[in-house]
Amino acid sequence: MAKDRKLVESITSRDVDFAQWYTDVVKKAELTGYTSVKGCMVLKPAGYAIWENIQRELDRRFKETGVENVYLPMLIPESLLNMEKDHVEGFAPEVAWVTQGGSTPLQEKMCVRPTSETLFCDLYSKDIQSYRDLPKVYNQWCSVLRWEKTTRPFLRSREFLWQEGHTAHATAEEAEERTRQMLNVYADFAEEVLAIPVVRGQKTDKEKFAGAEATYTIEALMHDGQALQSGTSHNFGDGFAKAFGIQYTDRDNTLKYVHQTSWGMTTRMIGAIIMVHGDDDGLVLPPRIAPTQCVIIPIRQDAEGVLAAAEKLTASLADAGIRVKADTTDRSPGWKFADQEMRGFPMRIEIGPKDLEKGVCVLVRRDTREKVTVPIELAAEESAKLLETIQKDMFERALKFRDSHISDADDYETFKKAVEEKPGFVRAHWCGDRACEDRIKDDTKATSRCIPLGDEGVSPEGAVCVCCGKPAKNLVYWGRAY
Amino acid sequence: MAKDRKLVESITSRDVDFAQWYTDVVKKAELTGYTSVKGCMVLKPAGYAIWENIQRELDRRFKETGVENVYLPMLIPESLLNMEKDHVEGFAPEVAWVTQGGSTPLQEKMCVRPTSETLFCDLYSKDIQSYRDLPKVYNQWCSVLRWEKTTRPFLRSREFLWQEGHTAHATAEEAEERTRQMLNVYADFAEEVLAIPVVRGQKTDKEKFAGAEATYTIEALMHDGQALQSGTSHNFGDGFAKAFGIQYTDRDNTLKYVHQTSWGMTTRMIGAIIMVHGDDDGLVLPPRIAPTQCVIIPIRQDAEGVLAAAEKLTASLADAGIRVKADTTDRSPGWKFADQEMRGFPMRIEIGPKDLEKGVCVLVRRDTREKVTVPIELAAEESAKLLETIQKDMFERALKFRDSHISDADDYETFKKAVEEKPGFVRAHWCGDRACEDRIKDDTKATSRCIPLGDEGVSPEGAVCVCCGKPAKNLVYWGRAY
Repeated sequence: MAKDRKLVESITSRDVDFAQWYTDVVKKAELTGYTSVKGCMVLKPAGYAIWENIQRELDRRFKETGVENVYLPMLIPESLLNMEKDHVEGFAPEVAWVTQGGSTPLQEKMCVRPTSETLFCDLYSKDIQSYRDLPKVYNQWCSVLRWEKTTRPFLRSREFLWQEGHTAHATAEEAEERTRQMLNVYADFAEEVLAIPVVRGQKTDKEKFAGAEATYTIEALMHDGQALQSGTSHNFGDGFAKAFGIQYTDRDNTLKYVHQTSWGMTTRMIGAIIMVHGDDDGLVLPPRIAPTQCVIIPIRQDAEGVLAAAEKLTASLADAGIRVKADTTDRSPGWKFADQEMRGFPMRIEIGPKDLEKGVCVLVRRDTREKVTVPIELAAEESAKLLETIQKDMFERALKFRDSHISDADDYETFKKAVEEKPGFVRAHWCGDRACEDRIKDDTKATSRCIPLGDEGVSPEGAVCVCCGKPAKNLVYWGRAY
Repeated sequence: MAKDRKLVESITSRDVDFAQWYTDVVKKAELTGYTSVKGCMVLKPAGYAIWENIQRELDRRFKETGVENVYLPMLIPESLLNMEKDHVEGFAPEVAWVTQGGSTPLQEKMCVRPTSETLFCDLYSKDIQSYRDLPKVYNQWCSVLRWEKTTRPFLRSREFLWQEGHTAHATAEEAEERTRQMLNVYADFAEEVLAIPVVRGQKTDKEKFAGAEATYTIEALMHDGQALQSGTSHNFGDGFAKAFGIQYTDRDNTLKYVHQTSWGMTTRMIGAIIMVHGDDDGLVLPPRIAPTQCVIIPIRQDAEGVLAAAEKLTASLADAGIRVKADTTDRSPGWKFADQEMRGFPMRIEIGPKDLEKGVCVLVRRDTREKVTVPIELAAEESAKLLETIQKDMFERALKFRDSHISDADDYETFKKAVEEKPGFVRAHWCGDRACEDRIKDDTKATSRCIPLGDEGVSPEGAVCVCCGKPAKNLVYWGRAY
């Protein structure tokens, strides 16, 4: 039984035009839908179900670290947004302003939240009095709005869904610890659940969040060699606390400012899944995040016993905890194969009259197309194992791809050549000056993605800046990015 | 060990000033928090956790009926809002308008969604071509904004959280069936999970949703005798389909308009839980919705073995699937009792040195304060049973209260007296004329809550309108309402 090629032919080849391939997959896998609201996104069931799984899994990991969920207003009065200088400079140019309520002009205009630091500070300034009130480890799941000029589904849109954690701590040490803890939660989630390997690192001053003392990031590499910032965690020090007057009485009876953090992950991760794992036949979803992990496709479903066998198989996989469904529509099996592949369901099971005679069915992996024939009574058990194998293999494959797309450059000519000719990360030392960072971007369109954490990020004695040749401070991962 | 009275004394008695009692409970149970954004709400962890449980349980019930979740934009361009006449007249007066993006005035202003019918119609007009594309049974969880003048936490606020389901069907019959099905989902959820008895009925034309052909509602009765509209389900017929051009090619190859429904439930239900079950000591949460179902409170926790026993108890209840925590802070047991009662956790377990000697612990119900001493090794099992009993008893008590607050009126004097002197629902026949409905509201502040479904709602031969005395069409539940 061959796959129907019509569906496949409707998408552009990944290596011919990556951007068009991406757009085609998003549309054909029905992740997003039509809207006449410019720059915004409609998440259709297949897309939203991925987000629900991301939410469930991240939320569970957050709560294990003591996070509590809350919900704050979607509007920020202008005076509140203005309270922290760097923050307002970073966000004011890209917010949408509400100026009228009903038929009445507002006395003070309000923006739709682009992020909620100022609202959390407003709350904390009232709720935190004593060391007994600390720490506060709050998070919210919501949508935010940033008035972007050019947009792409999941990667950059005016409205997107995310979670934003906002914490307040008694000491600078505790805030730094929480900042790094949440970065690790993101990194583990990306690698273990989304099968996306990431580099954990710190942003340069140029690239850090508006109002932060330090921004940590996880950076992933897409199939076209461009980087994607995939989750960030910020240490604010006591800057916001001073701007908003968030003080507590410590055990020693003195007034102290709190130290704050924030951290976020967005629907952008759905874009990352597409661009790391997808192929010319469409989406490929890692089993742990796939809303449907297996589709049972009956072959000649009109033949005696086939439909019943497919249904029994579906029930036995569901009992084993596998997210499974049967495709018993009146389409041809070949169409169903192509459809399952386009939608990226990690595996399918084919079962027809000949299989039934032998008491077997055929398990087919989405990622490698490998087929294996197993006895029907072992199908659930073997599928569970196969899904684990697929998950592991997808990560290994992405890791191998990522590692084979990292180059090192000791001088500027090599650097420029690497950016141009070898898509991926370029590792190179840097003096720490903004001027070199700006020049690299102007010359190559590559930006500093991050300074890797630990010893790797510290330039050894004698290393020089790849741009200016002066003594280097840090090793930096550079790359063109989404 | 007596309860510390200080906490309790900080709230107003329910029968002295119900509105103030409500405000006090919301604040002292830490359901909502401070915000300087006028008319909006901050849901703190204790409040948001209730909403998370509502979401989880409702979402599960939705999905069992084939609902798929999606996410649509938060902004609606003015031209889109204007497409259905009744709808825009109903909502335009209370929307907030975004007129500026970044530093640029928008060419067309957009409102923050007060509800999303127009956006779903926009999507459906593109996605629905053939009978094969039907039905569409979509839902979204989101926040909406309505520019209310007077606000109260949970009951009426400018921004609130809700779910809004929007469906499209091939036939009028199927749309009506879905409308009623979702009303039943709401009613069952309210009664089985929130322990809130409801009247299922249909809204009069005056009270129905802007743009609907028929609006169904569940109406609950609060402790002060006022009604609360608790969930609504609307049948739109093909009105929106005609306004937005949502047509499909049927099996007979002719073009037909779809028939649509929408249905919603909001954070208002948290207000209902407070006002139906709360008492003078604070919140009382039904076990099935309580984020924490049981608190273990050690007595003399410095005494040998007490803390260890409390922790063991906590683990055994958690193993039994009970949402449990131990309160091992340095507060007095009396303070902890009052705190548990204020927060409405359905039960607590007290365990001290004397109990330990006897191998027992004390289970205390929040709703009745009844205490029962049980062997420690049976505590988990007995707690699980007790929580079921509490859930059942809370519903029975609310039902008894509701039924004892329904009066019947055959003439207008009796009606007016009943509204004034016997808070609750008044059942009375009505001729179907808007003029009588208006007069009743002007005279008594009571509104038509609903026409009960089935035979009960049809006036028998000879029944007359309670207001004008002409032949009656329907029996109506009337009442003052939130």
